Amino acid sequence: TTDNFFEKTLAVREIAEIPGMLEFDLPVHGDNRGWFKENFQKEKMVPLGFPESFFAEGKLQNNVSFSRKNVLRGLHAEPWDKYISVADNGRVLGAWVDLREGASFGHVYQTVIDASKGIFVPRGVANGFQVLSDFVSYSYLVNDYWALELKPKYAFVNYADPALGIDWEDVVNAEVSAADEGHPLLEDVTAFTREMV
Amino acid sequence: TTDNFFEKTLAVREIAEIPGMLEFDLPVHGDNRGWFKENFQKEKMVPLGFPESFFAEGKLQNNVSFSRKNVLRGLHAEPWDKYISVADNGRVLGAWVDLREGASFGHVYQTVIDASKGIFVPRGVANGFQVLSDFVSYSYLVNDYWALELKPKYAFVNYADPALGIDWEDVVNAEVSAADEGHPLLEDVTAFTREMV
Ligand SMILES: Cc1cn([C@H]2C[C@H](O)[C@@H](COP(=O)(O)OP(=O)(O)O[C@H]3O[C@H](CO)[C@@H](O)[C@H](O)[C@H]3O)O2)c(=O)[nH]c1=O
Ligand SMILES: Cc1cn([C@H]2C[C@H](O)[C@@H](COP(=O)(O)OP(=O)(O)O[C@H]3O[C@H](CO)[C@@H](O)[C@H](O)[C@H]3O)O2)c(=O)[nH]c1=O
Repeated sequence: TTDNFFEKTLAVREIAEIPGMLEFDLPVHGDNRGWFKENFQKEKMVPLGFPESFFAEGKLQNNVSFSRKNVLRGLHAEPWDKYISVADNGRVLGAWVDLREGASFGHVYQTVIDASKGIFVPRGVANGFQVLSDFVSYSYLVNDYWALELKPKYAFVNYADPALGIDWEDVVNAEVSAADEGHPLLEDVTAFTREMV
Repeated sequence: TTDNFFEKTLAVREIAEIPGMLEFDLPVHGDNRGWFKENFQKEKMVPLGFPESFFAEGKLQNNVSFSRKNVLRGLHAEPWDKYISVADNGRVLGAWVDLREGASFGHVYQTVIDASKGIFVPRGVANGFQVLSDFVSYSYLVNDYWALELKPKYAFVNYADPALGIDWEDVVNAEVSAADEGHPLLEDVTAFTREMV
């Protein structure tokens, strides 16, 4: 856990680099047992700016991945929105790359997240992270359904592309999937078009 | 992780003791990085029996608690449904007590859960668990909003009541909250009425 982990006030910041991206401070309540947090609370977070449109189609999926230190997953953009967060005492370096056609294509944002942060990632923005702690439980909500057959319709960019300028913690020892190793450089990525997102 | 942790087929069982309670097997996919699971997937799980009514009012909250070994939380019944699960490599002994007025009042179900299980707990059924692993991340979805002022409208039963017959792992060393220590015995519980749930 970080210095400023417990009892933050629920708050939101717009990420200037990537339009539509939001970073939430989440209150984490500690006691003799451990801690508790409202990781997502629609009634409190929609008034702060969490898009009501996330729920427009009534679709919902909650994914959880568990990863060892140095594991790096990403960077993946799909035609759905993501609300991502850490579900244990771990920490990740999160990185996002805007792959939507337009003025912000290629813009990057990166920040360290622990359980006291929640990140809203709009569809068409590539999502990835490297694990800084011994392991991490990473949990996220999405509003459409993944399918292996649809993978050709998703967009990916190579985490190791120096053009992104991401300060990965330990990119040499990054433990990645074969798929993630093979993704294109930013200059070769086909942007997400309005029709795709 | 348990023997039978990876690559289960998504499946559901009705819990005979407690009407409306469901136990899901969740496929967990392991690889060089750790594992990944669809913890909740509406399109696949509603056809299997996850109640569509969970979403009727369009409310959504996702809670995460992180607890050390022997921590025991519960037993709490509130006027909302819960879909509970483990989000890391931990294990808990889960226990549920039906506090709804009627023939199943006082019925108990208990089982060990790890990340490969998901439990649907109908409103009015008290929920609790003791941590079996060194720590655990415990994540759940609910369809209405908690408030401290509403606590008098929730129902609680004392985890240590021998009448429940729950085989807690180590009830003597259970690390609990002051509130949970003070909850009534089953015989003193005011049942959830149809108007409350
Ligand atoms: C995304 C997804 C994957 N899977 C299966 C396919 C594989 O057997 C296993 C892992 O899938 P991968 O595509 O390698 O997962 P990963 O590289 O971690 O990427 C996913 O998870 C990442 C976070 O863990 C997200 O940032 C990505 O957007 C998402 O695509 O899970 C599902 O069953 N359902 C899914 O929704
Ligand atoms: C349930 C809830 C609690 N809180 C706050 C109040 C306290 O500062 C802190 C812990 O609350 P407690 O009521 O002690 O939490 P706990 O005993 O773990 O019980 C909750 O969490 C359990 C699982 O952790 C659930 O099984 C219970 O239904 C739920 O009531 O979190 C929230 O801010 N929002 C909530 O929704």
